[in-house]
Amino acid sequence: MSRTCLSIILAAGEGTRMRSSRSKVLHEVGHLPLVRHVARAALGAGSDALALVVGRDGDAVASAVRKDAPSAATFEQVERRGTGHAVLAARDALAEGFDDVVVLFGDTPLLSPDTIARARARLETGIAVCVIGFRPSDPTGYGRLIEEKGELVAIREQKEASEAELRIGFCNAGIMAFSGREALSMLEAIGDDNAKGEYYLTDLVEIARRCGHRVEAIEAPVAETIGVNNRAELAEVEALWQARTRERVMLSGVTLIDPKSVHFAYDTQVGEDVLIEPNVVFGPGVTIAPGAVIHAFCHLSGAMVGTGAAVGPFARLRPGTRLGEGTKVGNFCEVKQADVAAGAKINHLSYIGDAQIGANANIGAGTITCNYDGALKHLTQIGANAFIGSNSALVAPVAIGDGAYVGSGSVITENVEPDALAIARGRQVNKPDLGRSIAERNRAAKAAKANRS
Amino acid sequence: MSRTCLSIILAAGEGTRMRSSRSKVLHEVGHLPLVRHVARAALGAGSDALALVVGRDGDAVASAVRKDAPSAATFEQVERRGTGHAVLAARDALAEGFDDVVVLFGDTPLLSPDTIARARARLETGIAVCVIGFRPSDPTGYGRLIEEKGELVAIREQKEASEAELRIGFCNAGIMAFSGREALSMLEAIGDDNAKGEYYLTDLVEIARRCGHRVEAIEAPVAETIGVNNRAELAEVEALWQARTRERVMLSGVTLIDPKSVHFAYDTQVGEDVLIEPNVVFGPGVTIAPGAVIHAFCHLSGAMVGTGAAVGPFARLRPGTRLGEGTKVGNFCEVKQADVAAGAKINHLSYIGDAQIGANANIGAGTITCNYDGALKHLTQIGANAFIGSNSALVAPVAIGDGAYVGSGSVITENVEPDALAIARGRQVNKPDLGRSIAERNRAAKAAKANRS
Amino acid sequence: MSRTCLSIILAAGEGTRMRSSRSKVLHEVGHLPLVRHVARAALGAGSDALALVVGRDGDAVASAVRKDAPSAATFEQVERRGTGHAVLAARDALAEGFDDVVVLFGDTPLLSPDTIARARARLETGIAVCVIGFRPSDPTGYGRLIEEKGELVAIREQKEASEAELRIGFCNAGIMAFSGREALSMLEAIGDDNAKGEYYLTDLVEIARRCGHRVEAIEAPVAETIGVNNRAELAEVEALWQARTRERVMLSGVTLIDPKSVHFAYDTQVGEDVLIEPNVVFGPGVTIAPGAVIHAFCHLSGAMVGTGAAVGPFARLRPGTRLGEGTKVGNFCEVKQADVAAGAKINHLSYIGDAQIGANANIGAGTITCNYDGALKHLTQIGANAFIGSNSALVAPVAIGDGAYVGSGSVITENVEPDALAIARGRQVNKPDLGRSIAERNRAAKAAKANRS
Repeated sequence: MSRTCLSIILAAGEGTRMRSSRSKVLHEVGHLPLVRHVARAALGAGSDALALVVGRDGDAVASAVRKDAPSAATFEQVERRGTGHAVLAARDALAEGFDDVVVLFGDTPLLSPDTIARARARLETGIAVCVIGFRPSDPTGYGRLIEEKGELVAIREQKEASEAELRIGFCNAGIMAFSGREALSMLEAIGDDNAKGEYYLTDLVEIARRCGHRVEAIEAPVAETIGVNNRAELAEVEALWQARTRERVMLSGVTLIDPKSVHFAYDTQVGEDVLIEPNVVFGPGVTIAPGAVIHAFCHLSGAMVGTGAAVGPFARLRPGTRLGEGTKVGNFCEVKQADVAAGAKINHLSYIGDAQIGANANIGAGTITCNYDGALKHLTQIGANAFIGSNSALVAPVAIGDGAYVGSGSVITENVEPDALAIARGRQVNKPDLGRSIAERNRAAKAAKANRS
Repeated sequence: MSRTCLSIILAAGEGTRMRSSRSKVLHEVGHLPLVRHVARAALGAGSDALALVVGRDGDAVASAVRKDAPSAATFEQVERRGTGHAVLAARDALAEGFDDVVVLFGDTPLLSPDTIARARARLETGIAVCVIGFRPSDPTGYGRLIEEKGELVAIREQKEASEAELRIGFCNAGIMAFSGREALSMLEAIGDDNAKGEYYLTDLVEIARRCGHRVEAIEAPVAETIGVNNRAELAEVEALWQARTRERVMLSGVTLIDPKSVHFAYDTQVGEDVLIEPNVVFGPGVTIAPGAVIHAFCHLSGAMVGTGAAVGPFARLRPGTRLGEGTKVGNFCEVKQADVAAGAKINHLSYIGDAQIGANANIGAGTITCNYDGALKHLTQIGANAFIGSNSALVAPVAIGDGAYVGSGSVITENVEPDALAIARGRQVNKPDLGRSIAERNRAAKAAKANRS
Repeated sequence: MSRTCLSIILAAGEGTRMRSSRSKVLHEVGHLPLVRHVARAALGAGSDALALVVGRDGDAVASAVRKDAPSAATFEQVERRGTGHAVLAARDALAEGFDDVVVLFGDTPLLSPDTIARARARLETGIAVCVIGFRPSDPTGYGRLIEEKGELVAIREQKEASEAELRIGFCNAGIMAFSGREALSMLEAIGDDNAKGEYYLTDLVEIARRCGHRVEAIEAPVAETIGVNNRAELAEVEALWQARTRERVMLSGVTLIDPKSVHFAYDTQVGEDVLIEPNVVFGPGVTIAPGAVIHAFCHLSGAMVGTGAAVGPFARLRPGTRLGEGTKVGNFCEVKQADVAAGAKINHLSYIGDAQIGANANIGAGTITCNYDGALKHLTQIGANAFIGSNSALVAPVAIGDGAYVGSGSVITENVEPDALAIARGRQVNKPDLGRSIAERNRAAKAAKANRS
């Protein structure tokens, strides 16, 4: 599309019904703030510039959006005098002169780039305003879109609609695109001569037509137009977003045994022939290579899982984890900031943090990398084919050579050369009959205590 | 409401279709026995006295209800001769003389106090009987409520209903309220001259009208009237109860990313701006302070979580856990009967039981409080700012002073003074090349074994 | 049923839309390949012989089916020329002469034995062909079953159907049964004179009627007729199968607090009065005895859980686990290939592999059986009433006698006699003030590092 486009995102609402200390548009869906979903849709539809109209938490909102659109401009809406007034807060951006202007809401995160692009495409035909509508299952309460011969002639509020108009199921979603050339003059023509004394963006329909311009409406799927006003609606939108994502992932060749129990983040990447069992949660930044299996009850974030690797059940992968081909991370294991080379296994009850693990190394059950000294984190290096006996503690910084063997239950504080054996544990002493005596003494103490109370 | 009220809860059913060794009404929804839901609704609607009509497991049912209503009276229904007969088992309670009598079912746990109060409010207008009805999506099989000019004139069973009556969607929920003054005489007028030879409480409608009294019906939401007869219905009622609870919690300012995967107990309390990730199970007795985060895959019971604390993923908090402000309990950690002061961290693979942990203490990965000697439990005290190295075992009773430092992999059996260093582990010995020899020997043994088989 | 029956399972489809390296029919529902569901339904309906028509992964498909039907015959379909052509690939099996022939699809796993048996029962009345139909909520796109006076007269494809025919809601599921005597002659009469030049099995309707035979259709529940073409449909079918299974389990006397979050395998067996909390995943081969409790977040596979045992939350039972009566396996515990005798407890953070645990033994938190030496697995034996102190490592092969007591934090490498005490850990050394010095040094190092960067 060769036309230039400014998208204005209205994100100044108080969001009181969220009952939150944060701005509504910073609440997340798929681990991405609502307002970033909107910004990314705008960019996906070819926007050249973004203007954010902010109120509460303005700086936080702006800095969130700038992760997607570094040059997004921010405008503060000081007074709350309606949507028309809010859009004019971005007057300086509008004055730069764009072919298309799109007005979006920061709390309507499911709107697709495709719908925005369809609205822009209508502008290209020469119409002045294109309103995005939807058909809810029950239109009661929404403004109805009154069309005549393909033109949108009015947006009628519920209470002002005639019987016939109330039967119209096509409703105003609030979102619209309009010609940039007429933008400022049309916006400035909006008045506040109404019951609430507010400036309504919907007045553009009438204003444009009065000036002889053509106005149209296009339809978006209902789901795309849902706005978030409280946390129940936030959960609904999250559910719709997840359902959409799961469907896409499954059709690309990934098995989800119980799709509803798998939660994706906005940037999760999953390769073909991956199997994901029930109850898996993806935080941001996860990539799963083809053929891997993520067993039930896993939590992954900022991790790369290699081809054919097996994770879980009950595994947690934290940021900085890179699992090589055919690796295994098993139950009750946590891995963070660690490179695990091909074929290595961390199967049970281990904590591996700040580590490099060589190919085919075997990390025994209950192994702990003691990476933290109370102030700094230190590195543990484990060589290829090394065998770390169960219940060992590796006190970092420490290096264990290729093919080395660490005896079970050792506390390793010094480096171990390749192929060496390291043992660091107490000697066993058996004392005949003393086990029974201790048990008897303990039971007697219990009985005495019971008697006292 | 100044009128006195007796609520009679019928809880004597066999519940055979539950296929259970326990009485049906002791099965739980939201971790509360069905019959306690009913008792609490009765109390919530202002009941002054409760009468329980019990059969199987009578003592257990009574003692469950007495947790809410210590003075609830119990009456045993020896024979099973219909609902009218069951209510008369509570004759002594009825004889005490109450303004209102409400008859409830122990297996209908979702009835709200509000609905009961609405029925009582009708009685206050002078009517003799108020029947609670509902409108199921398919009324087939239910008794229809036949109304004329606002009065209930009959309850017609499916098989006795005319074509016109079958089209009525308003059905009998079984629950009713009636005037206490006429209660005994009306109940005694119920006969057993019918096919089954049983005494039907629904006959009260006809009896009251015959005596010149007015009878009315009020409507309850369908969900409130569902009774539990088998475990599939128990699960349905649980789902409805959870849905109701989740909605309430979300609207109060709590984010549930996936509401359907969060299970509340009847007494869970959650503060504003708490975030609860998917897959969290609350047992009874949990309080979460504002701003806390409960990550995915947590199981909490009898625990208090302080302001801004972070729990999980994969954490289990058991009864007696009190987490201070800003504390952290991380993955694969279990905490029970422990006070954890502000800022303390238990991040990985630890078991903390019967303990006091000071402010800002750091409990390393894999730390175990050895609290049990086979007979008694003992206390572990850890001072403020103490650092417990990873994979340590703290053998209780033991006290570790403020600012003390325990070396990784230590087994601490004696107290550690403030600011001291304690180490209790074996010395490391490295034996060159022996690792390789062991690995070779083990592989040879494997090969030999494979050859033998 | 005394009639003989051959079931032909068509399993040669490419399944391209699965985007998988495996044949579609090997994908699983309830941990059983689709094609095995079909084979088991055929056997359940009394089939005497199975003929598999295979393409891709033919050997793997055949060997899967032979687990249920060891003598199933396999026929390769080399060319893809329609369903009629596919059935004739099994010509040798058809030639053996069976009373009934049933044609099933390897990707339609929910068809019940009962529906197949109903179709066969129609054949017994002397009709030549019985087509299985269904009534989808929207019939658009399906072939309509045109009936006259109880006979099926034609299967009309959507595009060839009249207005009146399009209003018919009864559709062709593809599955059919026909008389074995006429089978070969009828199948050979199918021609390829159509747009695609393929041989359609549906032509049998016309062919049979042309020869003067009677053809009928019977109706199957919609859910039974769903075929799997992509992974979203696979998930749908899994959901239907799970829902059916959960309902059956609940009605048999098992409480599922949140049925949707419990995933069964095809062979899971659960006794009466078992309670299963939310989020439990069953792999194959699990049996739960009456009165056991499976707490939330458990993963079981190949395990037997004894009467009244308690598992979880957060427990993983792997193949070869046998838990005796009243045993407990608690949070963050993994058990595999282990016999755990009555009353024994493994409550926290333990790995028990290749072990025998005696009655009433107590396994302390963090206990690890070190069963693997890098090549072979070895056995750990723990006697009755033994007490294993927390955070112990038991280096197998090793035996700990009845009533023995192992001190916390021990690394046990040698056998322990009955009633003896065994300790194997380092001595504790406390160094005054050194903890503070270390903390100060570490903090200084951190500050220095921060300055450098």
